[in-house]
Amino acid sequence: MGDAVGIDIGGTNVRIATVARDGAVTDSARAPTPFGDVEALVATVVDLVRQRDDLPVGVGVAGGIGSDGVLCGAPNLGIDGARIGDLFDDALDRPVTVVNDADAATWAEARLGAGRGVDDLVVLTLGTGVGGGVVIGGRLLRGSSGLAGELGHIIVEEGGAACPCGNNGCLEAYASGTAMGDEGRSASELADAAGAGDRAAADRLAEVGTWLGVGIASIVNVLDPALVVIGGGAGEAVFDHIAPAARRALAERVFGRDHRAPPRVVPAELGDRAGTIGAALLALDACNGESSS
Amino acid sequence: MGDAVGIDIGGTNVRIATVARDGAVTDSARAPTPFGDVEALVATVVDLVRQRDDLPVGVGVAGGIGSDGVLCGAPNLGIDGARIGDLFDDALDRPVTVVNDADAATWAEARLGAGRGVDDLVVLTLGTGVGGGVVIGGRLLRGSSGLAGELGHIIVEEGGAACPCGNNGCLEAYASGTAMGDEGRSASELADAAGAGDRAAADRLAEVGTWLGVGIASIVNVLDPALVVIGGGAGEAVFDHIAPAARRALAERVFGRDHRAPPRVVPAELGDRAGTIGAALLALDACNGESSS
Repeated sequence: MGDAVGIDIGGTNVRIATVARDGAVTDSARAPTPFGDVEALVATVVDLVRQRDDLPVGVGVAGGIGSDGVLCGAPNLGIDGARIGDLFDDALDRPVTVVNDADAATWAEARLGAGRGVDDLVVLTLGTGVGGGVVIGGRLLRGSSGLAGELGHIIVEEGGAACPCGNNGCLEAYASGTAMGDEGRSASELADAAGAGDRAAADRLAEVGTWLGVGIASIVNVLDPALVVIGGGAGEAVFDHIAPAARRALAERVFGRDHRAPPRVVPAELGDRAGTIGAALLALDACNGESSS
Repeated sequence: MGDAVGIDIGGTNVRIATVARDGAVTDSARAPTPFGDVEALVATVVDLVRQRDDLPVGVGVAGGIGSDGVLCGAPNLGIDGARIGDLFDDALDRPVTVVNDADAATWAEARLGAGRGVDDLVVLTLGTGVGGGVVIGGRLLRGSSGLAGELGHIIVEEGGAACPCGNNGCLEAYASGTAMGDEGRSASELADAAGAGDRAAADRLAEVGTWLGVGIASIVNVLDPALVVIGGGAGEAVFDHIAPAARRALAERVFGRDHRAPPRVVPAELGDRAGTIGAALLALDACNGESSS
């Protein structure tokens, strides 16, 4: 048995894919994400899974997932606090592996994408928010309560910009796709404009890159990873325009900077398939013993 | 063979102790730390080790230690960049385990102190600077280049107060014993004054505690430890006066705060013996396989 079902629940769509252990996707589908209605969300997932009976199921959710399966902090889904792990187990009549969506994407990049062959890495996904995941010694870090790797919520400027999480000064408030939008231009519009020589757009993205580098410096001073991968829809759209400033800010701030090379900062490779692929791989791992710590 | 020699090289003193596997210290000594002279420092250590031949030796150093044994960032020793690992190996004619001093203290607290029985924890040592160490799954995190756990150099306020590392806005610049000093009063003088009802001293320490809580929130959002241990000479002196504000700031900022309890924040238990004990334990571990990742 080599296949699993991977589900990626984002703020806009629920994606599903049947994924082989090597990451090959044999079929996929999507449906709109219901907002603020956990029963409708579960029904959407059940409907998508229906034709894929008997396979292990992994779900990545755009929110923090406590080790008790409770959704902690998911403003884009409107169902904060739901016992989503138990709900999926019951509705799909099998044990379902439920993780944060960025953790799922991180695991896919670590195993099959930009992090292949690297044992210690972090992934930051820049999208509606800023997600993150941490791999140490080849294992996905879950933490003592399941909430490790919330890299978008490290504080880069105490008392600074308002973050959707309700706090101020989180990295997400400076470097998400939402935050980097400027005068009505989206992240990808800014990237296109910067690519066409628009100086204001280039400056705006360099500013975002600097904030990203500040956040990465803190992360590196905690974890000392060998690699930093930037993914997410906005992250991939703007990567070439933010990476130089991010690398410079990191190199200027990382501890021991006179005697070490900072880790490489590279783009993700799996695009928007990372979430479903990673969720499926985690479900396969759960069948065969542990992959996380 | 159950004993090892632990050495703790601080900015003021070099301490040495012979330590059993259970942490019992059978003898100890100290000598002043030579500043800015790596050969004199090595000679000091050789002299202290002389009567303890044939035992494994572990050294904790007040600076970042790259996995190549190079000292990266050690302003209090004045010997930044020295190949200290090789120098100790050669001078003591045996393989010497060399780590950051806060990593050594962390390992002692994890195994025998405030972190006994806890698999996922961080230690922050507030002294001349702010040191740190990370334990994940019962193993000390070293990182890809040996520089993990530099928790004093997470950035809490980009562009903020000057840090001895040369950066601005690091946690160390707000919460070290040096930084918390106020109008000529040291950390322990402030603690004594606050204990005697001095409102200004209490307010100053609450402010330090708030910054500490901001830094801990970022650390928790990355690692999700079960426990946060505050040690170091200044940290132990002021703990009772900074802990309430630190816990409050953490609880207000940690991700998923509406649906989780933040980790406990507790004082270290081993005092200034933690560095030598931890260095000795790491040397014993190195004789018997790995304890870090």
